[in-house]
Parts: sequence; C-alpha cells; structure tokens
Amino acid sequence: MAPSWMEAEIRSQPAMLSRLVEDAAPLVRELGRAVLRRRPRFVILAARGSSDHAAIYGKYLLETQAGLVASLAAPSVYSVYGRSPDVRDALAIGISQSGQSPDIVAAIDGARRAGALALAITNDETAPLARAADLVLPLGVGPERSIAATKTFTAELLALWLLVGAIAEVDPAPAHRVAADTEAALAAAERALAGFALGDASTPAVVAGRGFSFPIALEVALKLREVGVRNAQGFSVADLLHGHIAAVRAGTAAIVAGTAGPTLASLRECAAALRARGARTIVVSDDAGLRAAGDVAVPVEAATESLAAIPLTVVGQWLTLQDALARGLDPDRPPGLTKIVRTV
Amino acid sequence: MAPSWMEAEIRSQPAMLSRLVEDAAPLVRELGRAVLRRRPRFVILAARGSSDHAAIYGKYLLETQAGLVASLAAPSVYSVYGRSPDVRDALAIGISQSGQSPDIVAAIDGARRAGALALAITNDETAPLARAADLVLPLGVGPERSIAATKTFTAELLALWLLVGAIAEVDPAPAHRVAADTEAALAAAERALAGFALGDASTPAVVAGRGFSFPIALEVALKLREVGVRNAQGFSVADLLHGHIAAVRAGTAAIVAGTAGPTLASLRECAAALRARGARTIVVSDDAGLRAAGDVAVPVEAATESLAAIPLTVVGQWLTLQDALARGLDPDRPPGLTKIVRTV
Repeated sequence: MAPSWMEAEIRSQPAMLSRLVEDAAPLVRELGRAVLRRRPRFVILAARGSSDHAAIYGKYLLETQAGLVASLAAPSVYSVYGRSPDVRDALAIGISQSGQSPDIVAAIDGARRAGALALAITNDETAPLARAADLVLPLGVGPERSIAATKTFTAELLALWLLVGAIAEVDPAPAHRVAADTEAALAAAERALAGFALGDASTPAVVAGRGFSFPIALEVALKLREVGVRNAQGFSVADLLHGHIAAVRAGTAAIVAGTAGPTLASLRECAAALRARGARTIVVSDDAGLRAAGDVAVPVEAATESLAAIPLTVVGQWLTLQDALARGLDPDRPPGLTKIVRTV
Repeated sequence: MAPSWMEAEIRSQPAMLSRLVEDAAPLVRELGRAVLRRRPRFVILAARGSSDHAAIYGKYLLETQAGLVASLAAPSVYSVYGRSPDVRDALAIGISQSGQSPDIVAAIDGARRAGALALAITNDETAPLARAADLVLPLGVGPERSIAATKTFTAELLALWLLVGAIAEVDPAPAHRVAADTEAALAAAERALAGFALGDASTPAVVAGRGFSFPIALEVALKLREVGVRNAQGFSVADLLHGHIAAVRAGTAAIVAGTAGPTLASLRECAAALRARGARTIVVSDDAGLRAAGDVAVPVEAATESLAAIPLTVVGQWLTLQDALARGLDPDRPPGLTKIVRTV
C-alpha cells in the first residue's frame, strides 16, 4: 500500500523546514524592520483550528522574547458581533494555511482598516488573507494534500519563531538546527512507536504541555480527534493538575510533552500524577528523568526550548498516524472534515 | 439527607446576585471612572480554572462593549519564564475567588510594577491578590464551602458585566433582571432535569457555546469533570463544527447553550450536527427553535445576550449536580481537588 499523504507530508518536514529557514531569512529581516518602525503597543493574533495553536505559540514567543503583549482574537467579536476594538497601534497577525477562512480574513481586514499593521502568515500568498494584509509571510511549503494539517502547522511555528526573532532582534542561528532535530525526532518516534496504538476506539486521551509545549498539546489532541476519531483533550499542565485531572481514569492514554527548562518540574509532577491515576503515559522529552516517568518514552533534542515545539509536534503527528493505522483508519479520510474552514 | 454545600450554594445565587447588583453599584461607578482616567490602551486578564472562564467572558465584554482589546494572560510567562511584557498603559485585571493563586498574584503584581493599572476581582479583599492591586472589586458573597466554585463564578461574571458597563458607560439597568432570570432558570432546570444523568460513568460529554456562551461551555465542562468525574470538553461551536466533531460518537452526551441573537444560526447548526451523529443533545436556550433541536431542553430568559451567561451557567451547575447525584457521587467531595489553586 502506498503511504498516505499524511505520512508523506509528515516525512517531508525536515527538508521543508530547512528550506524555509534559508528562503525566508531575507524577507523575515525586512518584516521585522517594518514592524519595529511602527512600534506596535501590542499584538493581536487571529487564527482557527491548528493555526490557532500556532498563534498561542506565537503569543508565548512575543511575550517572552519581544516584550509585546499578545491577544488571541476571538474571531466572533469581528464576524458575529461586527465589532472592532481599538487596534490603531497594534500589530495584527492572521494565520491560515489556506488564507481563506472568512472570519480570519474579516478580523485582519477590519484591523487594517482600523489602523493596525496587518501581517498574514499563509501558504497561499494569493489568498484573501494575503490581500487583506499590509505584509505577507508566505510559508511556501507547496500544496498540503492531507486534510489534517501537518507540514503547514510546523511551517507556521517556524515562521513565527523567525518573525518574532526578527522583531526581538535575537540571533536566528538556532533555527539552522531545527531540520536535523526534527529528522532525529521522527526517527526516534518510528523506533519507539512502530505499530503503536493508544488503546481501542473508546480509550480517551489527554495531552499535556506547559509554556511552549502547551499549544503542542492542544495540536496533538486535535490531531487525535480528527484523524484518530478519539476522544482527546489537550491541557496546560497547570490546569490539568488543579482540576481537570479529576476525570482521568485508569486506562486513559496520557501524553506529556516538554523539555528541560523552567517547566520541567511541573511536567515531571504531571507525568507522575497521571501514572498514579493509572493512565498509560507516553512522554516526549529531551530530559531523561522526565522520560523515565513514562510507560513509553520518545527522546527529542532541540537547540532551544521554544524551537523544541517543532520536533515535539512531529512526534505527536507520528503517534497519531500510528494510532489511526493500527485501528485500520485511513488517515487521509478523516470523517466529516474539509480542508478549508469556512466559519463565518 | 441534608443538601450538599454545592446545592445550597447553587440555590443561593439569585439572592446573591440581587445583593451584588445593589451593593456594588457605587463602587463600580467609581472604578469605571478610575479606569477611564487612565485611558488604558488594552487590557490583560489573569486567572485560572473557573475564573479563567470568567476572564474569557470579560474579554468578550471588553472587546464588544468597551472597544478595548483584551488579552488572556498566560500566567507561565510571568511565573515560569519570569518575563513581563510591556504593559505600561494597560489595565491588568486579576480574577481569583480566593485571591491566593501565586501565579495570578505574580502576574498582577508584575503588571502593576511595570506601570499598568492593576485591578483585583476577588471574594477575599484581604488576600494577596487584593494587596497586589491598585483597585479592588470585592465579590462579597461570603465563604464558598463547595469545592467546586458555583456562586463565586456567577458573581465574577456579574462583577465583570457591571465593571465593563461602567467603563463603556452603558446603562446598568438590565442587571436588575438577572436575579429573577436566574431564579426562573433554576426552577426550569429543576423541572426538566429531576433525577437526570448524562449517562453512565464512561459516557463522554461535549459542551458547546458561541460568543458569550462559549466560556459558559468551558465552565460547565470543567464542572462535569470535577464533580461528575466525567470525560467532558467544552468547545466553541465554530471549532467543534470544523474539526473536533469528528470524534463525537453516538451515545455522547452533548450540551448546547446559547440565546437568540447573532450566534443563533450557528448554535442551531451545531445542535443538528450533534444529533445527526447520534449524540443525546441537551439544549439550554431562550429560543424555542433551538430548544426544539434538542432531545432534552431547558428554557432560560435574559435581559441581554451577555447577561444570559448567568442563567445558562446555573442550568449547567444544576445539570452537573443531578448527574453526580444520580450516580451516587458526593458533589462536596470531588476526588483530588483542593479549594485554592497554588500553581506556581
């Protein structure tokens, strides 16, 4: 059987990331200068679905590295309620692989008309989102055939990392390691997760991360729902430990993703708490101590904690793919999904 | 058997809301003027757990009524990563019933030191959060004995409604109806949901809302997890329809909450899609057409779409209580929870 589009696109990511780092460098420097000239007071990020998870990653980058408060737009404020809050000195970033989502286009168009500097991150630089923006950062990763977004999601993460780095004027050199780290993570996932299933169709899954790995937990849970048709929910480790963990029962599949750094202690506490409740726990980390807290472990390496989000994601994609294939699901035909989200 | 603290506190809400409207009026006007004098460029909201859901409600109010962009703080930016983005012309609102959560205190303290106008909404005006803020809006609803927050959550919603109304200089008169509407919703829930259970212990639940009812969906799902020990997840209708619904199987319990207004069409589409997938659907709404789309329906009334969040919440609390009692669970002893969230 030919591999699925999803598998092919997961495997294409190391080469894609490598090209994106090289190709985007001059444009990203120029975009960074354009943003700095406008001295935005804050940032709004507008996105849906997987791109919304990329936007949360962008929020962490902007707030910890560029010192800019970032707000995730509630698209319905603009689309359903028809309001535009005062964004005259804001940077508004719209993120959409297709560039078609009407409510994201409406949010970015409205923000630009209200005086914000509007920037589009999209895989289609001719799409309505790009036309609605002042500035465009194209992903340029070619058509995505898989309905479940994989390569466009990691491209969005890397584009945001490069863009915020340019705004914060930090050294972009660590990005040159991300392709190799992603390739190594994929190889490690193939070794650790061959033929792997999280359980039968009714096994619920929880995915936990903190800080830069929190949006990755949300994204992996979405993939497990879409492709694996599995009841899966992503959590911040902090929120999971102090409330939601009450409903984690023995036999739940739990995934804990994160790296050495300031979040490590809480990730270890989370993995231990999940195992204590009888959850089968899969740990994805560069930290051997954290990995030892899992029933199954996948090692990843990364140049920085923020860049680790990309190899962590790829392991989650591979896990999702294996979990679907092991149960005879076709990863290219997730039930009830269409490629372009046309929410209005 | 004596009623649980949870039941007693759910039932106390109409009288509590009535008192809060009266008692808070002069202070809220003064706080509104203090905020307007500072002319904040944007707002950050810092909260966790149920209070974080109140904060999302506050974001919708601020953006649609006061024209102020509102950003939900990622507490780990301040606590774990030790960064403070540039908030010198921001209004920073910390929300915590106990006023004790260290990371929320750290976020508000850090924002005030960085030049923001810091405002605390808390049920304990002597708590660290109140001491860290420039301004305090006390809930004054007395001790909450139930571990699962009920009356402090609806008090936070009403406090935010009154505060944002004062900032936006809108007529506060509709708030005088909220106690009666809440009492009526509670009576309707008692009639419709006597002895009700969402299913057996393994039945998953999804809760969907849009706009002002989106944070209520998140809150009801959290209650079902904490008190009902049930796998439950809250969604924006938009996100559910365009991705997550893939994992909704026949037999899932689905709750759709919302009112007549600009979100109604998407709520109807959502209820129909959930029933088409075989989910048993409970609808909570003032709209008869939407209620007709449910297997079970609870009518609510409200003066405005934004104030409807309070009666919608109370129906969700009652449903959670019934669902727990029907399975012999003690709502006052949810497993593994403590009252004060001490995340650092």
